[in-house]
Amino acid sequence: MDTPVSITELAERIKSGHRRSLAAAFSLLESTSKSDSARASELLQMIYQQAPVKSTRRIAVSGAPGAGKSTLLEAYGLALANQGMRVAVLAIDPSSARTGGSILADKVRMNQLADHDAVFIRPSPSRNALGGVNDATRNAILLSEFAGYDVVIVETVGVGQSEIAASSMVDLFVLLVLPTAGDELQGVKRGIMEVTDVILVTKSDIDLEAARRAAARYTGSSKLLTPLRTDWTCKTVTGSSLEPNGLDAFIAVVDQFFDPVRSESIALNRHRQRALWFDESLTLEFNQLIKSLQQSNATIGKARHAVLQGAKHPAVAAAEVVERISISIHDDGSRP
Amino acid sequence: MDTPVSITELAERIKSGHRRSLAAAFSLLESTSKSDSARASELLQMIYQQAPVKSTRRIAVSGAPGAGKSTLLEAYGLALANQGMRVAVLAIDPSSARTGGSILADKVRMNQLADHDAVFIRPSPSRNALGGVNDATRNAILLSEFAGYDVVIVETVGVGQSEIAASSMVDLFVLLVLPTAGDELQGVKRGIMEVTDVILVTKSDIDLEAARRAAARYTGSSKLLTPLRTDWTCKTVTGSSLEPNGLDAFIAVVDQFFDPVRSESIALNRHRQRALWFDESLTLEFNQLIKSLQQSNATIGKARHAVLQGAKHPAVAAAEVVERISISIHDDGSRP
Repeated sequence: MDTPVSITELAERIKSGHRRSLAAAFSLLESTSKSDSARASELLQMIYQQAPVKSTRRIAVSGAPGAGKSTLLEAYGLALANQGMRVAVLAIDPSSARTGGSILADKVRMNQLADHDAVFIRPSPSRNALGGVNDATRNAILLSEFAGYDVVIVETVGVGQSEIAASSMVDLFVLLVLPTAGDELQGVKRGIMEVTDVILVTKSDIDLEAARRAAARYTGSSKLLTPLRTDWTCKTVTGSSLEPNGLDAFIAVVDQFFDPVRSESIALNRHRQRALWFDESLTLEFNQLIKSLQQSNATIGKARHAVLQGAKHPAVAAAEVVERISISIHDDGSRP
Repeated sequence: MDTPVSITELAERIKSGHRRSLAAAFSLLESTSKSDSARASELLQMIYQQAPVKSTRRIAVSGAPGAGKSTLLEAYGLALANQGMRVAVLAIDPSSARTGGSILADKVRMNQLADHDAVFIRPSPSRNALGGVNDATRNAILLSEFAGYDVVIVETVGVGQSEIAASSMVDLFVLLVLPTAGDELQGVKRGIMEVTDVILVTKSDIDLEAARRAAARYTGSSKLLTPLRTDWTCKTVTGSSLEPNGLDAFIAVVDQFFDPVRSESIALNRHRQRALWFDESLTLEFNQLIKSLQQSNATIGKARHAVLQGAKHPAVAAAEVVERISISIHDDGSRP
């Protein structure tokens, strides 16, 4: 093992574009080792405070397996890289802790993209000592931006929960759907449709007319939902990741979303996301506190005993315990 | 409105088999009105303390829409009633608060059963002032048993979460599946299979051979899972709710599960479920406490401000807040 460099030194190397340092930083943030946690905290603090001066784009790409996520990421990522942008691709998968094998799999799936100098691909970060899965992905976004990436694409591979989580971390949420003729709207959960900013009907090269019909249906059904934002309603486009210029409409609608006139709206959304992140972190920390309390506190132990003996209803017993709780938070003495 | 009777009086009426009093008790437990909460607590305490002397059976029946739950409940419920048992059917549906319309729908779906004197059908209880959806269903089970029902069947109508919740409330978890020839195992979530005690392949009247083949496949795949219990492994049977004696194999396997030799194991499971119920209630209460703290506490407000200004990483800020917390629980003075 190398002697670990200081966090300041590591940060400098990351900023200068040193890929192995970036990979080491990702590993540090994902470390579950207690001995890494002080260094990880220091790095987190640094990447959070030193937000990039240039504007960045955070995009989630979601879709059922087979909807064409990998080919879209490959084609779209290369198009961005060829425009001179630096692109980071992250995956989020709360349902399983993926292993080294999948890192390889990710890179194989998108091999042209992975070979590009301006592109960084990172598989789903796993939950670490400093927070949950959501935290890990948010940290990965910040770290990517700290390293100078202009566009961070978060690929969601779950169906449902991970999409809602991803939408709370990115500026723009893209849903990929197939141009199948059937009752395909059924397959998309309402909750996902509600957070979607752009629907991309993929594989228009196979049957353009079918793709257009599907797009019209999605446009119709998205109109039934209450829009998430006041200044953007869900847009539907068709596209092909395999044809030349097949993604032009998609690229245009993304550019429209990130138009400078919308920058205030995007900043406001990020502000809200920060508040949400803090509240989630606090809840997570509280829950750990409570868990240890539940295991060790004598009054709670007595209440549990009464419940198990059949003497006290569980909800009544719990309410009585909480009524007797007092919580105080010592101020750190700093001025507000 | 009638003048409300005392809880003791209400309990007496319920015990004497007065159906309208039972319905009134259900309504009281589901009331969200603050003015009802003292009476509801008193009733909860009573039904929890006065567990029935005779042994009862708590059975969850789960399955995708179309798997034949309603017809099974109708046929199985009538078979039990004809054996002299009193049967309560409860529904659990955490995804939606069902309305009066569905009460009717439930009774129409199972009209023969609903007409039977020994049968009580209650649609999914909604979350009330004294706890969450899980609490409401658990209370409904206790109330049914308090009213003298021997068998309580909890029908789960969700797919996934509600099944896991239901399995923590009942003795026996039954999964209904169709005898379709395709890759039907894919449709059943691993998490549901893991909590399943009996798989019933339904509609064996349509194609007995197909049902037997499906049963063999389910038996094979259930063997791949780690059994939940030390003294019971998942059993697969075929059955028909429409043919005479079509449920004999199912009835036999349920009787086998509830054989007196297993009563200690079932009691131990209920004991564990009580502990879980208490812990869930406590977490729920704590979360409410924390929510109000997050909104009003000055130290938390300062930390949130630092996060929003970009000065402090959310997880780091949250950890710092929680480090400064002290919680004390005043003992109620009673002896352990």
